[in-house]
Amino acid sequence: MTNATIHGQTRILGLDPGLRRTGWGVVVSEGARLRWVAHGVVTPPESAPLSERLLWLLDKVGEVCATHGCDEAAIEEVFVNVNPSSTLKLGHARAAVMLAPARAGLSVAEYSPNLIKKAVVGAGHADKTQIAFMVKRLLPAAGDVTADAADALAVAITHAQLRKRALLARSAA
Amino acid sequence: MTNATIHGQTRILGLDPGLRRTGWGVVVSEGARLRWVAHGVVTPPESAPLSERLLWLLDKVGEVCATHGCDEAAIEEVFVNVNPSSTLKLGHARAAVMLAPARAGLSVAEYSPNLIKKAVVGAGHADKTQIAFMVKRLLPAAGDVTADAADALAVAITHAQLRKRALLARSAA
Repeated sequence: MTNATIHGQTRILGLDPGLRRTGWGVVVSEGARLRWVAHGVVTPPESAPLSERLLWLLDKVGEVCATHGCDEAAIEEVFVNVNPSSTLKLGHARAAVMLAPARAGLSVAEYSPNLIKKAVVGAGHADKTQIAFMVKRLLPAAGDVTADAADALAVAITHAQLRKRALLARSAA
Repeated sequence: MTNATIHGQTRILGLDPGLRRTGWGVVVSEGARLRWVAHGVVTPPESAPLSERLLWLLDKVGEVCATHGCDEAAIEEVFVNVNPSSTLKLGHARAAVMLAPARAGLSVAEYSPNLIKKAVVGAGHADKTQIAFMVKRLLPAAGDVTADAADALAVAITHAQLRKRALLARSAA
């Protein structure tokens, strides 16, 4: 956690990791307000050896983090795939993506898919279309958002809401 | 691959990743000779958040790599666990551990468990005890070696043998 307070601005990096495509989204949380900053997708070179693809992910997400001066990061807790090989690949990508903000000294919060759905849509059983719809409503300046970036922005929105609650609880204690 | 030749000295870092314990071993390959340099185990703090444990692994393996001036690295291709949660954890640890040499510009070779057993013991169905026994025979200076470090040294030995063959094939072409 940075020194940012409830009333200060906090730039949050949301991450949706994948070895082929990693979505990212940055929002600013300031008091009760939430503002879109940027989003995008990074796609490591498919033909490179695994170590180079992971390094590419680490570097690119690190650049995003530095470019937008992020204060905190958040990522989805993983859905364990039925296919062990896919689960392993996701584990690799997720570690590289988490390490980028961690190297910059940022905390990386983890939220379960259900918690993210509840925070963004209001229901734990929401589907991807509903999430994308609500992300666009909550962040109208975002414009067109791909599925990967919408998921990343949804994690950032979740963190903005939940960190605020945690800070309020702490200041009331 | 570095500029090291068949006749030059090449320092090889072998890695056996795990989120709780990561084994490492360094050997020098020079012509037909193989020499032990160092080995050890790093154990990230268990109670820390995942991103910090991964960062810890990245940093510690990076220190090992720099301290011993490694030229190339090698890691075991993964045994996909029947437990998806363990597979995911291993994926996280493996990525962090691979990223340490990759960041330093080293190539990271991957070898299947069977190939490592064949290279070290001579049989693809060898068990852990046989691997540890042969690692001690091939590297008598290593002294006492724990299971994690023995596996890491076995990967380094495998790389020393197989990169030599690849270099010989290239120079004969």
